[in-house]
Amino acid sequence: MDMGKVNSMDFREFMEVFGNVIERCPLIAAAVWSQSPFSDWEDLARHFSAFIDALPQSGKEGVLRCYPDLAGHDLHQGTLTAESQREHSVAGLMSLGANEGLRLAELNSQYRARFGFPFVLAARLSDRETVFRELERRLRCPSALELRTALGEVKKIGRLRLADLFGVDPAARL
Amino acid sequence: MDMGKVNSMDFREFMEVFGNVIERCPLIAAAVWSQSPFSDWEDLARHFSAFIDALPQSGKEGVLRCYPDLAGHDLHQGTLTAESQREHSVAGLMSLGANEGLRLAELNSQYRARFGFPFVLAARLSDRETVFRELERRLRCPSALELRTALGEVKKIGRLRLADLFGVDPAARL
Repeated sequence: MDMGKVNSMDFREFMEVFGNVIERCPLIAAAVWSQSPFSDWEDLARHFSAFIDALPQSGKEGVLRCYPDLAGHDLHQGTLTAESQREHSVAGLMSLGANEGLRLAELNSQYRARFGFPFVLAARLSDRETVFRELERRLRCPSALELRTALGEVKKIGRLRLADLFGVDPAARL
Repeated sequence: MDMGKVNSMDFREFMEVFGNVIERCPLIAAAVWSQSPFSDWEDLARHFSAFIDALPQSGKEGVLRCYPDLAGHDLHQGTLTAESQREHSVAGLMSLGANEGLRLAELNSQYRARFGFPFVLAARLSDRETVFRELERRLRCPSALELRTALGEVKKIGRLRLADLFGVDPAARL
């Protein structure tokens, strides 16, 4: 995909490709669409990030709440989005043992109870051990810091999804 | 449904019931959820409206773009949401004649080209004649006025969806 093509997409085409860059928040892609032309994929990524930054706090928390628990309800119900399923798979979260699964459910539940949104992590940059270690570490963070950290992960996930769509390697710049 | 039940819903329950009060914008319900307790259904409706009002202009336009064209692509593809399908049905938009269908498609297309978002109308308060008359009238409005009008329709649709869920008659207060 090249930017000339993206910049000439009508709304429906744009949403089909970029509608889930921010998980289950098509509103954000729908807002970003009209800000075309974009100079390159990172410019497009910056527009997604800037929109999130401009939301009131309730909206930032709302974005986070649109993400699934890692290896949680949506995985078990088969209702993960295609993007999230791939991220789960890369991080080795599709095949947790029974004890690991229970431990992760317990930590996810503690995290939700504490912060009011699910634990969000760019799983594709992680493995199982990192997921558990980060979840235990972030559970102890102050709320304001944790909101910033979690939104940073949302942006990383969005950049990785965009990099996939454009066939580029984002690793050096995350 | 009573407010005691709503105010005790966990996040997933709340989203199952209220996730589509604003069409295809679960982010908004996800933001509103944490503002519980709500005193009554109109208080809940005000929280949805206030969130929309607090969005930057690109976000307000993004909300509008999440709505389908009336009797357009989603109807023909079978991808209308359940709520929208009911609204189409009440307004008599499920069974347009061929000429009416073509005329509506042409007007919808002109409207999108002019304003950058689809024509949104609380179809349940309308009939076919009103839909055509309003579309022709609003096509000639200044952009800033039309954005306000369209967002007013989004809020009316949301109030009607909420009134349904609570089994109340909102008509006198729209």
